[in-house]
Amino acid sequence: MIFNNHKGGNKESIGDHIHIGIITVSDRAFTKEYIDLGGPEIVEFFTEILESEWTSHSIIVPDEQTEIETCIKKLTDEINCSLVITTGGTGPAKRDVTPDATISIADKELLGFGELMRNISLKYVPTAILSRQTAVIRGESLIINLPGQPKAIRETIDEIFSAVPYCIDLIEGPYIEVKKHKIKIFRPKNAIREI
Amino acid sequence: MIFNNHKGGNKESIGDHIHIGIITVSDRAFTKEYIDLGGPEIVEFFTEILESEWTSHSIIVPDEQTEIETCIKKLTDEINCSLVITTGGTGPAKRDVTPDATISIADKELLGFGELMRNISLKYVPTAILSRQTAVIRGESLIINLPGQPKAIRETIDEIFSAVPYCIDLIEGPYIEVKKHKIKIFRPKNAIREI
Amino acid sequence: MIFNNHKGGNKESIGDHIHIGIITVSDRAFTKEYIDLGGPEIVEFFTEILESEWTSHSIIVPDEQTEIETCIKKLTDEINCSLVITTGGTGPAKRDVTPDATISIADKELLGFGELMRNISLKYVPTAILSRQTAVIRGESLIINLPGQPKAIRETIDEIFSAVPYCIDLIEGPYIEVKKHKIKIFRPKNAIREI
Repeated sequence: MIFNNHKGGNKESIGDHIHIGIITVSDRAFTKEYIDLGGPEIVEFFTEILESEWTSHSIIVPDEQTEIETCIKKLTDEINCSLVITTGGTGPAKRDVTPDATISIADKELLGFGELMRNISLKYVPTAILSRQTAVIRGESLIINLPGQPKAIRETIDEIFSAVPYCIDLIEGPYIEVKKHKIKIFRPKNAIREI
Repeated sequence: MIFNNHKGGNKESIGDHIHIGIITVSDRAFTKEYIDLGGPEIVEFFTEILESEWTSHSIIVPDEQTEIETCIKKLTDEINCSLVITTGGTGPAKRDVTPDATISIADKELLGFGELMRNISLKYVPTAILSRQTAVIRGESLIINLPGQPKAIRETIDEIFSAVPYCIDLIEGPYIEVKKHKIKIFRPKNAIREI
Repeated sequence: MIFNNHKGGNKESIGDHIHIGIITVSDRAFTKEYIDLGGPEIVEFFTEILESEWTSHSIIVPDEQTEIETCIKKLTDEINCSLVITTGGTGPAKRDVTPDATISIADKELLGFGELMRNISLKYVPTAILSRQTAVIRGESLIINLPGQPKAIRETIDEIFSAVPYCIDLIEGPYIEVKKHKIKIFRPKNAIREI
């Protein structure tokens, strides 16, 4: 397992530092048959929107349930990632096992993420209902499955991310501060950190 | 376990008498650190809309899965509540275990309730997707998780209740009659009781 | 178990031949207390929209979980149906066990089908949230639960079918060709078979 790191954010931010895991699940990206575009797209998203200091830990794994599980657990339990994003492997095909791996290491499933992501994708393609993507809590970490295609990644993360910082507050993770002119997030008034 | 009772409805109603359980799940309401507003909000709702005679059995429990399970089972199996409403404990936080307790005592889960309640709340806040609320059937009882906040309780119950009386018909519970000028409910024509 | 067969489609189609299982789940249709209308409605749908050659295998079973499971497995594992449609038994009543049977023989559940079908039905009746219908993958077969009433069958299948041919492509089943003037389906460009 080799993790590729990125760092970003602003030292002056009132937010906390956050570790983010990014897992590209793809047999073909793993064997380098094709270049991973999903992982870098997610790094790009965080570069654009995060004000809090952040460190990402990216890895490519094949579509094997046990390997995906091991990888998520390493990111959450050892590297202390409060947020883990997977991309790929959410369809109905035999090798698509990302949601199964995610659910099997979960303490709690948050069905609302999958419902909303499918609703978003339904605006673009009727085959959105084939996606099994979900989100779960493991300990003090939130794990979210995104689709595999860069375009679909961006369409969904842009909208669901508005609920992510408050979710991480609720599970006692770091306080995430975003660039307010880049993305809208929501916290109840009494959960907003004052300067 | 101390249950607080309310009674209401109209003796002349063509509907049947119904027992309703109301469970406020909250560590802080249990220790009286703060006053339970959710439970009374639900009693108020039934006072406004029910024409059938009804008796409610309200209780406050801490955010402990076993206690919530015991409480639901007492209400359904011993006190004969055909409908049990919980409020609170549906989020992603460690102490939020109401849906877990609900699913663990269920015969059948009705995913449509959670989906619709999250869709309703999404009109107000993007963090609605963090709610894990659901509804289940246990024997001849319907158990529904509502959010904790009085405002969110009313927003959701007003809309989902239209399906509740027919659901209770289908599981062979009492025929619920409502005040037609206060709330709209739906039953197929052949399920409507004639005077 | 007696299966009633229908055949249809066009020999000239560039699509593959597909076997389709149709299961009417109903105590009353099984005992001939009333005539099965759901099964024939589904055969009618395929007659109208399929260009690929097809053979359907229809059967009526009572609302018994084990019998439904046996029947689905016979259709998928022995008769080689790539698509199995059930009708009936999706509600909250004690005898409604079709989704339970479906999930218990599944490799993967596709929650998006149930979500979309409930959303479609919600346009017509608020009691749509009581339906527990779902869809699953078993091996190389897709199994979909439809409602029991002919009108509700048609409302839902017309809309969800647009995702079915590509789903069957993804699980390595036959390539389904439809009558393009009768129904719109979606496949990504690189999945469309050239003449």
